[in-house]
Amino acid sequence: MFCMFCNHSVAGDIIFYMKELILLRHGESQWNAENRFTGWADVPLSVRGRREAELAGRRLRESGFTCREASCSLLMRAVHTLNIVLAGLDCAWVPVHKDWRLNERHYGALQGRNKGAVESEAGEDAVQRWRRAYDCPPPPLPAGDERLLVQAQRYAALPAVPLLQTESLKDTHRRVRACWEEVLRPRLYGAGSMLVVAHGNSLRALLMHLRGLTPAGVEQLEVPTAQPIRLLFDDDMKLQA
Amino acid sequence: MFCMFCNHSVAGDIIFYMKELILLRHGESQWNAENRFTGWADVPLSVRGRREAELAGRRLRESGFTCREASCSLLMRAVHTLNIVLAGLDCAWVPVHKDWRLNERHYGALQGRNKGAVESEAGEDAVQRWRRAYDCPPPPLPAGDERLLVQAQRYAALPAVPLLQTESLKDTHRRVRACWEEVLRPRLYGAGSMLVVAHGNSLRALLMHLRGLTPAGVEQLEVPTAQPIRLLFDDDMKLQA
Repeated sequence: MFCMFCNHSVAGDIIFYMKELILLRHGESQWNAENRFTGWADVPLSVRGRREAELAGRRLRESGFTCREASCSLLMRAVHTLNIVLAGLDCAWVPVHKDWRLNERHYGALQGRNKGAVESEAGEDAVQRWRRAYDCPPPPLPAGDERLLVQAQRYAALPAVPLLQTESLKDTHRRVRACWEEVLRPRLYGAGSMLVVAHGNSLRALLMHLRGLTPAGVEQLEVPTAQPIRLLFDDDMKLQA
Repeated sequence: MFCMFCNHSVAGDIIFYMKELILLRHGESQWNAENRFTGWADVPLSVRGRREAELAGRRLRESGFTCREASCSLLMRAVHTLNIVLAGLDCAWVPVHKDWRLNERHYGALQGRNKGAVESEAGEDAVQRWRRAYDCPPPPLPAGDERLLVQAQRYAALPAVPLLQTESLKDTHRRVRACWEEVLRPRLYGAGSMLVVAHGNSLRALLMHLRGLTPAGVEQLEVPTAQPIRLLFDDDMKLQA
């Protein structure tokens, strides 16, 4: 049973503090709007995406969410969404941890390409598998591809970031799970509340881990842009709701 | 002698990589515009302040600055300035360390008050001493003052932050120096370049430490809003320029 005012779980005379985790997919990016595969390409928010982020901040504030820690990916659509939401929450001072393991799934050679054009070339079934199946990586970025060089230059200063050329959701799942166990979980435990801004597929992977979904189950899971997902954990970090 | 293209110091056949530090005071805040003492009060940027930050980002980008690490205070005028500058540099992914020790000097009971009104009450000389002298704290925030309660609530989740009631520049100098030695210096050494966004008095204190200024020397030092100050360090972290 939860206290309706403060989210503490109430059992007899003992009050347990609940840990509150908000997951948020970034607002619409310019390439979302143009129906292009994005992955690790670093694309800004659209005007609509910025408005979505402002609205998410307002909704979280009205819900009484008190943010004490925050994490996001290295991609600007997530970082900027987080900045906008923290400004809306009057929480600019909150510590922010940026982690490549929260990046969107790497979309390989599809990055930058129009989804309709790829469907015409490769067929709807192939595109559907690349987008939704658990263990089906798109074709890799070839060595020497300009997109790979840009990626290598950008993260050269962060030696922890591998030079990925493509990923299946299974690959993304593995790194997101490591990020949760090593960084997010202990920080949420310590702070009591945390906001994580990430991407459609990195959040699908995280929800798969937290909710114990099967590969078949996660195929059905869609995460809409800028809609806060609220999870509560008890003192033993067991998911309650 | 420095290479004109990459800021490496050149001595005979040996090239030393220089460490580049950019110090930046936040853009104009709403209370700067209203001529009010601010200190630890958390006041947003004015419209002009946001434009100043955008311009600083553009200037830094045009100068070829490649940001690899960033730090700022816990106050939104510094955090938001940093966010704007990093967006301008296309560096949203850079790790950001927020530290209370980069906060503006605590202005005690003067926080929120109009500077002209305080001059009328306490005299120009007293105000000048509070603003410029090295060892002259303004009157403290009294226990129970609402401003102190807001401050205590805000930083309750960050146990490292003390409940200050006022500060002299000497007090600020001590904490800024500790921040430099413990956090900023090793991070600059490791990354090779860093952007620090802070405040008039925390930057005066940092420049005092880095340039070995005397208390009399620092009295003359003014740091304008959103004007990048560039410092270069050699491989032994000796200030070169």
